[in-house]
Amino acid sequence: MAGHSANSAGRLLQLFRSGDVRTRRELQLVTGLSRSTLTSRVDDLLAGGYLVEDGQAGWGPGRPSTYLRFDDRTPTILTADLGATHGRLAVCDAAGNVLAEQRIESLIAHGPSKVLGRVRRQLARLLKATGRDPASVCGVGVGVPGPVAFDAGRVLRPPIMPGWENFPVADHLADGFGAPAFVENDANLMGLGEQRAIYPDVHSVLFVKVGTGIGAGFVLDGEVVRGADGAEGDIGHAKVPGSKDICACGAVGCLAAGSSGQAMARDLRARGRDATTCRDVVSLVQQGDSFAVQVVLEAGRSLGGVLATVVSMLNPAVLVIGGDIAHAHEHFLAGVRETLARETQPLASAHLVVAASALGDWAGTAGAAAMVRERIFSPDSVDEALERVLV
Amino acid sequence: MAGHSANSAGRLLQLFRSGDVRTRRELQLVTGLSRSTLTSRVDDLLAGGYLVEDGQAGWGPGRPSTYLRFDDRTPTILTADLGATHGRLAVCDAAGNVLAEQRIESLIAHGPSKVLGRVRRQLARLLKATGRDPASVCGVGVGVPGPVAFDAGRVLRPPIMPGWENFPVADHLADGFGAPAFVENDANLMGLGEQRAIYPDVHSVLFVKVGTGIGAGFVLDGEVVRGADGAEGDIGHAKVPGSKDICACGAVGCLAAGSSGQAMARDLRARGRDATTCRDVVSLVQQGDSFAVQVVLEAGRSLGGVLATVVSMLNPAVLVIGGDIAHAHEHFLAGVRETLARETQPLASAHLVVAASALGDWAGTAGAAAMVRERIFSPDSVDEALERVLV
Repeated sequence: MAGHSANSAGRLLQLFRSGDVRTRRELQLVTGLSRSTLTSRVDDLLAGGYLVEDGQAGWGPGRPSTYLRFDDRTPTILTADLGATHGRLAVCDAAGNVLAEQRIESLIAHGPSKVLGRVRRQLARLLKATGRDPASVCGVGVGVPGPVAFDAGRVLRPPIMPGWENFPVADHLADGFGAPAFVENDANLMGLGEQRAIYPDVHSVLFVKVGTGIGAGFVLDGEVVRGADGAEGDIGHAKVPGSKDICACGAVGCLAAGSSGQAMARDLRARGRDATTCRDVVSLVQQGDSFAVQVVLEAGRSLGGVLATVVSMLNPAVLVIGGDIAHAHEHFLAGVRETLARETQPLASAHLVVAASALGDWAGTAGAAAMVRERIFSPDSVDEALERVLV
Repeated sequence: MAGHSANSAGRLLQLFRSGDVRTRRELQLVTGLSRSTLTSRVDDLLAGGYLVEDGQAGWGPGRPSTYLRFDDRTPTILTADLGATHGRLAVCDAAGNVLAEQRIESLIAHGPSKVLGRVRRQLARLLKATGRDPASVCGVGVGVPGPVAFDAGRVLRPPIMPGWENFPVADHLADGFGAPAFVENDANLMGLGEQRAIYPDVHSVLFVKVGTGIGAGFVLDGEVVRGADGAEGDIGHAKVPGSKDICACGAVGCLAAGSSGQAMARDLRARGRDATTCRDVVSLVQQGDSFAVQVVLEAGRSLGGVLATVVSMLNPAVLVIGGDIAHAHEHFLAGVRETLARETQPLASAHLVVAASALGDWAGTAGAAAMVRERIFSPDSVDEALERVLV
């Protein structure tokens, strides 16, 4: 990748992080750096807290070596998981531990300047509250509810994000924190977070977010599957047989027009309930409102029908339902399972695990932290931030 | 992989094939083999015709070196692309050139002993006709119209392949030819063949085979995407809104019950036409039978509806329609394109290329040859056959 130097600080840290090298001597053998350069680089990394000394290697010929270990509690990662109506900000270490977090109410439709301005201010405040050095920030990870051009760090033709098209989201946040920033679709991030934390050894995880809208992410062999135009996982406009619901996109019968949080709230309002958001729908279900239960079950059935085609095509090992609806998962998942069982062949669904998100509201944050950690501390990644910190 | 030795003949060939090494000296540097072992291995490979001498390297210090080159015309690959009612056998070289081929009429439902017995006899006869040494066979590639356990080389719960479940297809053919054999789903193989030959640099190719039945394969970043249970691409039983067709699987409204070659032939028979197979349907279309055109167009529309969900999920760069229906592709693709355009969001389909298979009846053979070549001449692959040949 451009700007990546073969023996950069990030590369050296990655060698320790992977366990490929454990001592200065092994580092020298692998990198071919001169002894003096190597000593100075390792000293910088020790001073920054990225490496820690961790005991003595055995007594072979020559001087005894000190074991060095990457301390993944030292670098700081900032995350922003932005939904349509609210978001979650967090300060994490590179091990993924959350050090401080905050839920913000913010309409994505207010546009990038307003939303991202708020994200920057609040993240800076949260970072300050942790007492961490701003220079320790190694990366920023952002999830957005729309299609993303990942390499460009921009949002593409976002149906529910007016004003965001082509706004340089990643550059804007990178400038704000002096560290590389990465933007990803929210369902992709949630799928990644769930897979890393809950299903680390599972071949394939299909994640479906049901919140204000509906989106999906697919993690295959540990990697997020990306489409040719950044539009992967956009199943909210798949057609539901027999549906006459008019969608925000202008078409009739879209999945999101009947099964999204917004659509369920609309159906509940039509029956006199006080419901605006997916959270309101969940509250009504939790209060035992039988019409709300029926609406959620039916929405699950419709989603199951669309997922039957996706499951037949991809034959995933695990299907996770997340987003706000996961708080009412019993009824929603019952509907999904019913249609899936009816409309798939036994081989594709007999071993399929259908589960509610175990990370719940934290899936996006976990995914954002994993994305940044793996991008920054990998041999193929950018590591300008580290270079800057260590100069 | 088990049984793979680091400096096996396959590994050595792979180093030459990739261009990583060009001379005996470079081979020694990379492999660390002793000079005498290396000389003997290279002599074997030269004697077998796998390596050829190809000019002298420049005059540096020491003796001038001779360039060595992998000759991919030397190893022989046998392929069998088996459909429900007929198959295609071929003898290829490792560059994928077809040296001899034969179409066979054979019902897959006759079971593995009968079908594979015939495949073995006919492939042996074809091989003999080419004048090639049976010892030059480096691998056998087989496509079957059902789900496959790839690593085991077996067929799984195949709906239209009675008697095949768990039959050791790969072992049976490997025994017959003294070379490793690989079994893959037919649509996966056709997708692989089409991607390698026609779309080598394309991010993602979705291939749909419409013959007696309907199946799909997805090639992402050059690799066939496999499901957790070998059931990927089984879209023939996705539900078509409003359809009352009864499927061979027992369910109502399956895509294959209305849009497969078998189903189209049934609809044409009901209107007094003489049609049993997908080929018959194609013949009627080519004769200008307007009811046949209507049936094919409508089948394409139904497929387009199912593919709209798949395209929304995966956002592929290219969608290829293959199998026997590709011979009547104008009308069928018109139907697919119509529904796809109506039922997908612009971002997912605006740049989508929808095309008939350019390889046509050869897609499966090309895919089988590519599968074997890449499995045998890759660092991670088994290469027992080569070891045997070169002893």
